Amino acid sequence: MFLKAKKVDISTGGPLVALLNEKDAALLDLNPLDRIEIKKGKHKLTVAIDITDKEIKKGHIGLLKEALKKFPIKKGEKLKVKVSETPHSIELIKKKLDGQELKKSEIDEIIKDIVENDLTEIELTYFVSASYRNGLTNKETEYLTKAIIKHGGRLKLKNKIIVDKHCTGGLPNNRTTMLVVPIVAAAGLTIPKTSSRAITSAAGTADVMETLCNVCFPIPKVKEIVKKTNACIVWGGAINLASADDKLIKVRHPLRLDPEGMLLSSILAKKAAVNSTHVLIDIPIGKTMKVKTKKEGKRLKRKFKVLGKSLGMKMKVMISNGSQPIGKGIGSNLEARDILYILTKDKRAPKDLENKAIYMSILILKMVGIKSAKKRVKEILNLGLANAKFREIIKAQGGNPKVKPEDLKLGKYKFEVKATRSGKISSIDNKRIAKIARVAGCPESNESGLYLEIRLRQKIKRNQLLFTIYSESKEKLKYAKSFVKNTIKIQ
Amino acid sequence: MFLKAKKVDISTGGPLVALLNEKDAALLDLNPLDRIEIKKGKHKLTVAIDITDKEIKKGHIGLLKEALKKFPIKKGEKLKVKVSETPHSIELIKKKLDGQELKKSEIDEIIKDIVENDLTEIELTYFVSASYRNGLTNKETEYLTKAIIKHGGRLKLKNKIIVDKHCTGGLPNNRTTMLVVPIVAAAGLTIPKTSSRAITSAAGTADVMETLCNVCFPIPKVKEIVKKTNACIVWGGAINLASADDKLIKVRHPLRLDPEGMLLSSILAKKAAVNSTHVLIDIPIGKTMKVKTKKEGKRLKRKFKVLGKSLGMKMKVMISNGSQPIGKGIGSNLEARDILYILTKDKRAPKDLENKAIYMSILILKMVGIKSAKKRVKEILNLGLANAKFREIIKAQGGNPKVKPEDLKLGKYKFEVKATRSGKISSIDNKRIAKIARVAGCPESNESGLYLEIRLRQKIKRNQLLFTIYSESKEKLKYAKSFVKNTIKIQ
Repeated sequence: MFLKAKKVDISTGGPLVALLNEKDAALLDLNPLDRIEIKKGKHKLTVAIDITDKEIKKGHIGLLKEALKKFPIKKGEKLKVKVSETPHSIELIKKKLDGQELKKSEIDEIIKDIVENDLTEIELTYFVSASYRNGLTNKETEYLTKAIIKHGGRLKLKNKIIVDKHCTGGLPNNRTTMLVVPIVAAAGLTIPKTSSRAITSAAGTADVMETLCNVCFPIPKVKEIVKKTNACIVWGGAINLASADDKLIKVRHPLRLDPEGMLLSSILAKKAAVNSTHVLIDIPIGKTMKVKTKKEGKRLKRKFKVLGKSLGMKMKVMISNGSQPIGKGIGSNLEARDILYILTKDKRAPKDLENKAIYMSILILKMVGIKSAKKRVKEILNLGLANAKFREIIKAQGGNPKVKPEDLKLGKYKFEVKATRSGKISSIDNKRIAKIARVAGCPESNESGLYLEIRLRQKIKRNQLLFTIYSESKEKLKYAKSFVKNTIKIQ
Repeated sequence: MFLKAKKVDISTGGPLVALLNEKDAALLDLNPLDRIEIKKGKHKLTVAIDITDKEIKKGHIGLLKEALKKFPIKKGEKLKVKVSETPHSIELIKKKLDGQELKKSEIDEIIKDIVENDLTEIELTYFVSASYRNGLTNKETEYLTKAIIKHGGRLKLKNKIIVDKHCTGGLPNNRTTMLVVPIVAAAGLTIPKTSSRAITSAAGTADVMETLCNVCFPIPKVKEIVKKTNACIVWGGAINLASADDKLIKVRHPLRLDPEGMLLSSILAKKAAVNSTHVLIDIPIGKTMKVKTKKEGKRLKRKFKVLGKSLGMKMKVMISNGSQPIGKGIGSNLEARDILYILTKDKRAPKDLENKAIYMSILILKMVGIKSAKKRVKEILNLGLANAKFREIIKAQGGNPKVKPEDLKLGKYKFEVKATRSGKISSIDNKRIAKIARVAGCPESNESGLYLEIRLRQKIKRNQLLFTIYSESKEKLKYAKSFVKNTIKIQ
């Protein structure tokens, strides 16, 4: 069948889709989400279809943006259309949904089809459901991770030892990466760190680093930065290390599903893609965190170790205290300021963040067999070597190496939250802290956020300052204030 | 936030969706598939969002067709947009996915949200996955059925006894409805039959009936026809008895999932919606059928009985032979012709279809307690009462009651398939028979299809005619010929 091509100015966010008129679909015996092959000369593409009674007239075919990118057309030109087999990976997804274990080649086929946009979001959803409900075995998790690595981008560094770190997240500030990276790089180790942006938090490491320099680079430029400085702190999304993973995350979002195997593979595929040999994983646990109990933390730790081993990585997993934010500032500029305070030995430096970063750096140095690790790390920090390395990285990433904490502006509207009674701080709700910062403008506005003045179990007086909210917008500040109640409890 | 409204000329096929620019989505802290509430004066609507970087500029909002239908806008007018809670039914879907049983009120809430287009297709897919993988208990199936009935259309007939029949399908021709309905209606029973169109078959009962009269009526007109003639044979899709079911079927299609509970509820909700009190279910079993073994058939039979009982229906379930087509014609006109042959006692009448319809009619008469059912059914057929009743129904549905088999034209292109050797017919592949008919033009073309000249276990000579393919198009006939091989096996 020949159909006249038409451009449809809509994006699916991934899957390749064309619109057919219901009459043409009937002639080809097609249902919504079936596949067709479109052909023009030697150029072929397989797309899923959706069916319409009006938008596309009989005799026409509408290509949506993703399909147009792979198959450019002139308006009105004729395309040959024929029924196509559904991808074999759909059978494999069905197999997993039926409770059967998938083989290496089978998982590889599913991930390949995801990366090439050959599966619709409904089909991806079935894969997530199957992986969630039936679980992924250790082997399946390994295959999934390897497939994501194989079909994603790679940094291809040739160093024998490459170290890396990752935190399972959820803790406000906790910006250890921006200290650990310069410390271990100053110790002579290579650490090509890719970080994420905020998803549910006030800021991601990539957002905070971006207040000081660029974080979006193509792969060759990242390699150049790493060669020059032993390190980098860049946004992983820009180098597309795991595109299958990003697509799966989109359909996991509506039900907020985190199938464990997918969570693990998502993290370690990105480490493997930068050729990491030694990886430190931090799992903060706490009541308002993703991982709530020590038992859950230990279970996850074992899973990480099994997967790490199968990928040939040396791995250390630490379970840390996630009962309150680490650091004082929450929001991009406020968090970057904390980092600069620590590196420059400013008296405003948050000790908890500094100590955690020191502890993690020691663990990494020990992993690769460096002796007197503790002494070494303290020296690096105290002698200003970490500060110098950090500014070297900022410069390599196009920022101002002479940046001072005062250069990082805060929102002109602020609100001080004070204790309504005297007592002892009994709990800090991490989720609410993040919510207040987000409503105040994070992560889009660097100048927004909040500055925490107290710590758990600290004794306070009535009217003592608990935290200050900063915002660029009067309206947002007002809205943020409405979330203050119950964030910090006093007993 | 206020955004300028824009119409987006695309249909989602159900869910209410609006497009936001990524910058506005970020300001509201929204991810794809999150919900917003749009407001204009007192008019409010909750929609899911998708995020774009180009199609919709910052400061604008694009409403897709389904949303526009419920919320008409003028181009450029300002709408108030705020973040909305996700529907509670998403939590319930997650609960089911986690393996927990759902309560009556919970299933009702999910179905209500489906009917009101408050759930996206990804969320529907999770519901289907959960129902497939974990199964629906008998209670859940009952609640699902009742919810579909409650949130669908109803015929509201007041007769004390209303009979109905249903076949689980998959057998070519097998057009028993068009005989059973006039027979039992002529016996004085009320049978408001709603039928489906072809999905994977050559023709559905609604398609075949449509060659003789109209089958699409609004509910009040269907009631009128039933009052006048005791019966009707109309297309169920036109009266929208189970819209939740239609939406679930769309997302079941890509993996061809038939969660048993959904299959059962889909069938019986439509019976309950026409107030059926006595229902006969036919489950044909065979190697090329959906239900393959007697064991599976019996299992399904028990499930039907349990669900029927919970809906207060009297139910008879028969397991029949599905090893070959019932009737000779396959395709709308060819099947309608078989019916007219039988009703007019023409010598070309296919005996197998006639006998099956007689058997089923007797079962229905017995179910409602009519004595000498067998004698009665035979009389009704032999004295021409069924023929008269059928033509009364055709007339009430706007057709020509004097229609003759010769009025039903066949495609001018035909091809005779002959035996390549002598022997005994050892198998007939129902799926291939349907495929050939569909490729020849069914169900869109009434005149296309095939006419079967042989039966299983029949002895045949070399070159003896097996079947004739009819098509309106030379090209389609050629294409249909390519599927002939292995359809009928001779031993």
